[in-house]
Amino acid sequence: MTVGQSKLRGVLRVASLAVGAVLLLAVFWVVARIVLYRQVDDSERLVGKREYLARIVATPRPPAEEAINVVLILFDDLGYGDLGSYGADAIETPNLDRIAAAGLRFTSAYAPSPYCSASRAGLLTGRHAIRSGMHHVLQAPGTWQDNLLRLGGRNRRLPKEEITLSEVLSAAGYATGIVGKWHLGDESPSLPNDRGFDRFWGLLYSNDQGEPRVLENGGVVEPHPIDQTTLTRRYTERAVEFLERQAAGPFFLYLPHTFPHIPLHVSSERVGSSAGGLYGDVVEELDESVGTVMSTLERLGVAERTLVIVSSDNGPWFQGSRGPVRGRKFDVFDGGTRVPFLLAGPAGVPGGRVIETPISALDVFPTVLELAGLPLPGDRQIDGVSLAGALREGTEPPSRPIFFQQLGIPRAVRLGRFKYHARHAVFYGNPMDWIWGPMRYRGPWLFDLELDHDESYDVSARHPQEAERLAAMLADWQRELESNPRGWR
Amino acid sequence: MTVGQSKLRGVLRVASLAVGAVLLLAVFWVVARIVLYRQVDDSERLVGKREYLARIVATPRPPAEEAINVVLILFDDLGYGDLGSYGADAIETPNLDRIAAAGLRFTSAYAPSPYCSASRAGLLTGRHAIRSGMHHVLQAPGTWQDNLLRLGGRNRRLPKEEITLSEVLSAAGYATGIVGKWHLGDESPSLPNDRGFDRFWGLLYSNDQGEPRVLENGGVVEPHPIDQTTLTRRYTERAVEFLERQAAGPFFLYLPHTFPHIPLHVSSERVGSSAGGLYGDVVEELDESVGTVMSTLERLGVAERTLVIVSSDNGPWFQGSRGPVRGRKFDVFDGGTRVPFLLAGPAGVPGGRVIETPISALDVFPTVLELAGLPLPGDRQIDGVSLAGALREGTEPPSRPIFFQQLGIPRAVRLGRFKYHARHAVFYGNPMDWIWGPMRYRGPWLFDLELDHDESYDVSARHPQEAERLAAMLADWQRELESNPRGWR
Repeated sequence: MTVGQSKLRGVLRVASLAVGAVLLLAVFWVVARIVLYRQVDDSERLVGKREYLARIVATPRPPAEEAINVVLILFDDLGYGDLGSYGADAIETPNLDRIAAAGLRFTSAYAPSPYCSASRAGLLTGRHAIRSGMHHVLQAPGTWQDNLLRLGGRNRRLPKEEITLSEVLSAAGYATGIVGKWHLGDESPSLPNDRGFDRFWGLLYSNDQGEPRVLENGGVVEPHPIDQTTLTRRYTERAVEFLERQAAGPFFLYLPHTFPHIPLHVSSERVGSSAGGLYGDVVEELDESVGTVMSTLERLGVAERTLVIVSSDNGPWFQGSRGPVRGRKFDVFDGGTRVPFLLAGPAGVPGGRVIETPISALDVFPTVLELAGLPLPGDRQIDGVSLAGALREGTEPPSRPIFFQQLGIPRAVRLGRFKYHARHAVFYGNPMDWIWGPMRYRGPWLFDLELDHDESYDVSARHPQEAERLAAMLADWQRELESNPRGWR
Repeated sequence: MTVGQSKLRGVLRVASLAVGAVLLLAVFWVVARIVLYRQVDDSERLVGKREYLARIVATPRPPAEEAINVVLILFDDLGYGDLGSYGADAIETPNLDRIAAAGLRFTSAYAPSPYCSASRAGLLTGRHAIRSGMHHVLQAPGTWQDNLLRLGGRNRRLPKEEITLSEVLSAAGYATGIVGKWHLGDESPSLPNDRGFDRFWGLLYSNDQGEPRVLENGGVVEPHPIDQTTLTRRYTERAVEFLERQAAGPFFLYLPHTFPHIPLHVSSERVGSSAGGLYGDVVEELDESVGTVMSTLERLGVAERTLVIVSSDNGPWFQGSRGPVRGRKFDVFDGGTRVPFLLAGPAGVPGGRVIETPISALDVFPTVLELAGLPLPGDRQIDGVSLAGALREGTEPPSRPIFFQQLGIPRAVRLGRFKYHARHAVFYGNPMDWIWGPMRYRGPWLFDLELDHDESYDVSARHPQEAERLAAMLADWQRELESNPRGWR
């Protein structure tokens, strides 16, 4: 072969690569059109939802002074290792550590998804995000990414027939408020005020998406560019206002903070105050916010009747510590979803307990309902399990599989100390992986998280039965999702 | 806007994406053709090299029984956390731990590059890989990736005028042998036997590239598919043979193991023996190999005159532990290049010392030359610094910047406890990053590795002077590389 022939062959190969790229996009488009769930509100299930909420309205209510209030604080992209009680050295979080010391601290709590919208959909419905077709990240309107979602028929809002925690508690007579980031749709019927919240003050998207705007209920109160440096302080003020107004109870305050999602911003007087740099400044201001909320509950005399839940929507992204676990935001490794998770109050909860049994933030929905004495909906699968026993009687949460997905595709499952990853092609990762290398697969892997919290050593050959058992669980889950993704009964 | 118009706009956007992908490839090709270093042997520097080697030949030699022998053991993709002496729980490495206990263990040693060929080029020449145009990964011939490299005029072998450690030691009268993986070219004049090695037994590429073949000197002795399960054992046997034959000394044995690079293979009797699964089995067999080499040196009575160096070419890939640091193979985070690094013998070295001062595997070349009483070449930049003082007098290695690059692009620099990352676009990473998200940048970041070994918290605002100083160092290095990439003097 001459040099000319060799070069020609090279050119042809590059050309075929380009054609391949175009074909790949075409395939993506077709798959998106055909396979993925399309946004259609399910009118039959809407009836079921209405009947259920009517049942909630009719459920006998305890006197207000006996009812349990709920404060749900969610951070955005906060890492497993970012809090003092989870091993942080560079960041001081005394208020959060006080909650950990007074309540339950979970060392193996998992967010429902390694990214934003999907995690929030899971948290508020108690159901895997795929059940509501929300297993992706909502994008700001007008961006090409959002157009791609539209084109693919992907959900751009939480479907109407899904039941949110706020809708249930609102039907049960709770005053309901959300202060912070929504990220479950920017149009009716999926705005916060459509979904059981009496009051909304905050952002519809992440603080890096499109042109962030602050909304109060339906209306924009601060156009782009918003002042992000005072956002945490203003969230805190609105939260305190809500608590003061609703102190008679019962109330549900959902406080999904915007930070430490990037771009990082903090009150000017805090800049440089943390050893952990700007990220540390931001987290320490969030900790102060938590302290303010807690002292407000004390001041209003409702602390003993209020269940406080603190967590993060997924693992850390560019900065932030994943602690000793592997991976970060978007990953199926633990760092993608293993997050701080604290439960405190109401009175009677044995304080300072550390719970190692794996749980999920999907459990918030059934836990709150059980504590509030409210039934679960019967016409749909609720994927979370109640932790009320752990709270009230100090029992261990039940052992059950924790599933990991990306874009709705089942990827891994954890049961007890073992975590199983299905084999799958790695066509991404580092650019050199797929530009220079042959096609790579990862897995199937079985990790023993007690031995190896970093998911570094596949021990499937040493524990073939566990590997088989978990593989079967994951396959069952996949089959279940395929046959009934929405989990209707 | 009607639905039809909206859809049309979506289609147009997808089409423009596809066109963008094609353009991107075209740009890549043009850049590769124009900017990147082309494989040309530099005849002028070849003269300089010949003169230098003639000088080495003429250097007075110590009597053989006083000369220092060198054994350089390199693992492939072994992680910072994979050895007992570096904190591994799941893997037992008693032989390597014994070396650590008897010699120097470096906690901040960096491989020259976060991937293979570039790391080996740096190790054997004492110069950054970009100086030899080897700042990428060599691909098996005939693959489209290799055609892309050819098309881009990228080096496909270590240039003739580069001076390798083996060439210097061979000129100094050493018997030189390589047993293991070469990965610095598959054609003359860049085969092991062209580059100063009397004997070669092993692979030209990684064990996952093309169709791996075992070669003995120039000839294939085992066609594809080779038996990889016995590879470590056979490497060890060849290494022992070489040592036995060359015991009179002086000798240089380079033993670059194939494992724990994937696909993982181990002697059948070892399967299931390690708590760390198959990866653990593989590493424990490597440890046994090290033990065999060490006991051979003892048995031959040359241990006290032999410098043993143990390290890895880069961080762990799919499996393997990065220890407490951030990132894995390919990364500019520490996990990409921070590797185990042990130095033992010759006699007189104070044992059991732990050295925290950052060093580089580039230092091997000048260290060995100083211990062997040989001068450095004067016509070219040597980027490593000699660690002979640390070995002989127990002094701390000099404090100097450690640079991090990807594909020859300067990315980060560490000096003492601080590490600075330049700002750069993240157009890769997780697919959702660039499919769904806006363009992302990371950095500039300053990490305090004493506070935060996980590179999680940018502290540049707290240490502006250090940030500025390191940024300037990185910029200077970039300028130096641009003006004189090959480091000619």
